[in-house]
Amino acid sequence: MGTTPDRTSRHAARRERRAEIPLAKIPFKELRNPFPPLEIIPPEGIEKIHESSLRLLEEVGLCVMDAEALSLYEKAGAKVDHASQMVWIDRGLLMETVAQAPAEFTWRARNPERNVRIGSNRIALAPNVGMAYASDLDRGRRRGTTQDYENFCKLGQMCNVIHINGGEMVALQDTPSSIRHLRRLRANFLYTDKPIMEALHGRIIPQDCFEMAKMVFGDIGGDPVLGGVINCSSPLRYDDRMAGGLISYARAGQIVIVTPFISAGAMGPITIAGALTQQNAEALAGIALTQIVRPGAPVMYGNFTTSTDMKSGAPAFGTPEAAWATLVGAQLARRYRIPFRGSGSLNTAKVPDAQAAYESLWSAWPVMLAGAHIVLHSVGWLEGGLTASFEKWIIDAENMAMFIRFFGGFEINDDTLALDMINEVGPGGHHFGTPHTQARFATEFHQSALADRLGYETWAAAGGWDAAKRANQIWKDMLAHYEPPPLDAALQQALAGFVQKREKELEGKNLYD
Amino acid sequence: MGTTPDRTSRHAARRERRAEIPLAKIPFKELRNPFPPLEIIPPEGIEKIHESSLRLLEEVGLCVMDAEALSLYEKAGAKVDHASQMVWIDRGLLMETVAQAPAEFTWRARNPERNVRIGSNRIALAPNVGMAYASDLDRGRRRGTTQDYENFCKLGQMCNVIHINGGEMVALQDTPSSIRHLRRLRANFLYTDKPIMEALHGRIIPQDCFEMAKMVFGDIGGDPVLGGVINCSSPLRYDDRMAGGLISYARAGQIVIVTPFISAGAMGPITIAGALTQQNAEALAGIALTQIVRPGAPVMYGNFTTSTDMKSGAPAFGTPEAAWATLVGAQLARRYRIPFRGSGSLNTAKVPDAQAAYESLWSAWPVMLAGAHIVLHSVGWLEGGLTASFEKWIIDAENMAMFIRFFGGFEINDDTLALDMINEVGPGGHHFGTPHTQARFATEFHQSALADRLGYETWAAAGGWDAAKRANQIWKDMLAHYEPPPLDAALQQALAGFVQKREKELEGKNLYD
Repeated sequence: MGTTPDRTSRHAARRERRAEIPLAKIPFKELRNPFPPLEIIPPEGIEKIHESSLRLLEEVGLCVMDAEALSLYEKAGAKVDHASQMVWIDRGLLMETVAQAPAEFTWRARNPERNVRIGSNRIALAPNVGMAYASDLDRGRRRGTTQDYENFCKLGQMCNVIHINGGEMVALQDTPSSIRHLRRLRANFLYTDKPIMEALHGRIIPQDCFEMAKMVFGDIGGDPVLGGVINCSSPLRYDDRMAGGLISYARAGQIVIVTPFISAGAMGPITIAGALTQQNAEALAGIALTQIVRPGAPVMYGNFTTSTDMKSGAPAFGTPEAAWATLVGAQLARRYRIPFRGSGSLNTAKVPDAQAAYESLWSAWPVMLAGAHIVLHSVGWLEGGLTASFEKWIIDAENMAMFIRFFGGFEINDDTLALDMINEVGPGGHHFGTPHTQARFATEFHQSALADRLGYETWAAAGGWDAAKRANQIWKDMLAHYEPPPLDAALQQALAGFVQKREKELEGKNLYD
Repeated sequence: MGTTPDRTSRHAARRERRAEIPLAKIPFKELRNPFPPLEIIPPEGIEKIHESSLRLLEEVGLCVMDAEALSLYEKAGAKVDHASQMVWIDRGLLMETVAQAPAEFTWRARNPERNVRIGSNRIALAPNVGMAYASDLDRGRRRGTTQDYENFCKLGQMCNVIHINGGEMVALQDTPSSIRHLRRLRANFLYTDKPIMEALHGRIIPQDCFEMAKMVFGDIGGDPVLGGVINCSSPLRYDDRMAGGLISYARAGQIVIVTPFISAGAMGPITIAGALTQQNAEALAGIALTQIVRPGAPVMYGNFTTSTDMKSGAPAFGTPEAAWATLVGAQLARRYRIPFRGSGSLNTAKVPDAQAAYESLWSAWPVMLAGAHIVLHSVGWLEGGLTASFEKWIIDAENMAMFIRFFGGFEINDDTLALDMINEVGPGGHHFGTPHTQARFATEFHQSALADRLGYETWAAAGGWDAAKRANQIWKDMLAHYEPPPLDAALQQALAGFVQKREKELEGKNLYD
């Protein structure tokens, strides 16, 4: 694979075109929220939820359907009943254990320039995770494929609103489920050099991922290189897939994002105060287990509590009640000094329409104001998380880029106050052609390829495209100009060899036996 | 017009149906933001902008193209040059005058139960103002008509996310411009009993409006009953329409919302710090004039500073830079203890699509967090303010209803913490059928008629409607069940008589001569 002159000029042409796509030219940069987090309930309210959740773990207890997890809790001093698989954790043990979790850590990327620090007032953005379907305007909604997965991975690499790539951005439904993790992780190592997420269910998947990560990183014992989400099977139950994954990741010092999924009124009380009590108990129990396995293991407090559509029984997303849960969830996580995970583009719309956009921003604004440290699902969500939409990916990425700009703030000094320029232009004049404007017109405002600001007639004459149609052009333009980050050829071969070997070994196997 | 049994039962049926439309059953209630306003720049930054704008009014000055206004400034002690129509206001005079404006006031409605208090942490929501076109999915975009106007007025009456109704929600392009104010105000008095806005340009329109208001209110000398927007012709110029309207309203003790309209880089410096310097100077000069005319006259500090699309030169809306301007604008207004006006649904989209929704929420979230006291354009905006869309009206109203819910907050007590219920349901159980859920399922969550949360197949089988299509059904359903608030028949006749008389007198007249 030598570099011919032809190839070089093709590279150069791609680079040049990329430099013109607003979403592709955002620099990779740490995002910080410079404002104090929005606290919507007073400290007394937080204490009430805290107290209530401690009582819950002491008196009601938690069902953990995994023998190793039960033993770990028991050895640490919790009361365990193996027959019923129930665990009761007293507040002393719980708080002591939770206190060992780090408030900050670094998520390593295979390109050290892309390492991401988690904690403090930093916000790391990550893509859609857990989708069954892919959709775009050309082909509609269909089962996810390897190609869809790779395309999302490429978009996440090209667009630097995304800090952390990977995870199950869409299910590889063209591939047996026993080997999907191998295909996903290889794609991640090939197509992105950012930090990556992976599914961490059970014990086999994590071990395979650690093996592959070791091939890329050499050693994964220092700062973590992989992270993923553990959901509680709410109410109050961790199954063996979740417990096994949590234990495997914690033991290897990798990142566990403990996230109860509570649709209030279905998997928890209908009242947000009650749902948050349950969320807090479930989250703390999971966080404690990571610290029992390995004190100091990187862990996050995840929030996914939302309201329920009482007509259908389905979870509702992007609602005022979910906004409360996010903001108070972050307040609770701060109480324990544990980095907080929220979500950025949740909605129940079937198409990337006004509902998709407004519900997503009812997800994004609260999570940004909350002081979240990682925002999953920051792009691509549709249909309650069932579908990853390429157009929605672009619409969301545009909004995330706007938050990056918003948090960047503006300068106030003699130059920007521009008194001389205002004087020179005078009453009734124009600032369009001034040197002050000319020097800044290309950089002073957030640039958007998505927002159409043409006059109605011009817009109509050009086809009258809505935002989804324009987004369709943008993602195709981006993928057409994608280039993979360099990866050593021998390493590529080694990864391929490992994947091939394991695919044979895992053929037809149930990974959770 | 007696009440026949048939009529009574028709009324009852309408009331019943209205009670099922979520947007029509929201109670008329004061909205308060219980959180401290988001302050994005420190007090030193506010002082820099303040200082800079004072220097601007002292050194650069302001052009006021109205003889009476010039005389008023001069008598108050400002330096005036009548030949060039320039005014220079020193900081002592400016601050002393501005300090006389009230921090709070009550906007009276013809139904006293609909009076709206402005100030403190209250937020009053008002509709779209200043649109040339109306649009809906059935008939597309067309010139606004009296019927469109009346329909917006009816929606604003029915839907209690709207606190203040009226204003030029759409231009009555089927009516000569010299008599539109008469038709608008009569429609407002007929179709709504909420506080109302009106255009306050020049001197003839305000006088007519005061005459009509006196017929309805008896006396308008106490708390104000009318309010409207005065725009500065930025940079640094008030024309006679604006100055005349400002003087007329202030003299009559009615509400002036002083709003510089600065598209940064066109009508002001491209830097937000510079644009805000200019905005602050323009706003303070206008506010000062209201207080020179009548100390204590109700006045508001308006913000409409936004970024510019540097490709077309047109104003951009719903941008991160506009969000800064809104938030800092509110900080400035608080410095002077003057109620603040922002905007709720600004965007440049041509159709009620994802762009329309996301830009609008980039307008709504900042203005809600800013501590705004009145939010104009909270519903209905499309296309940079050129078009009032019926579907967008519903989409925006839904979002405003969500803010009302969000700011309402949730209770934390033993009952809502629901520990007993969590215990009873136990691990792995369901909360759907519990008495705790059943007692609350109809009221615990924000109810939406707009958000579709059906499964994909069900949604597709029902026609696969997007949010705009569903909004289309909702506004038609609302209008079909509208009923006017009672208004004395003699008063109706008197208003009609006045309008008829003035229409003859004003035929073909230029109202700004």
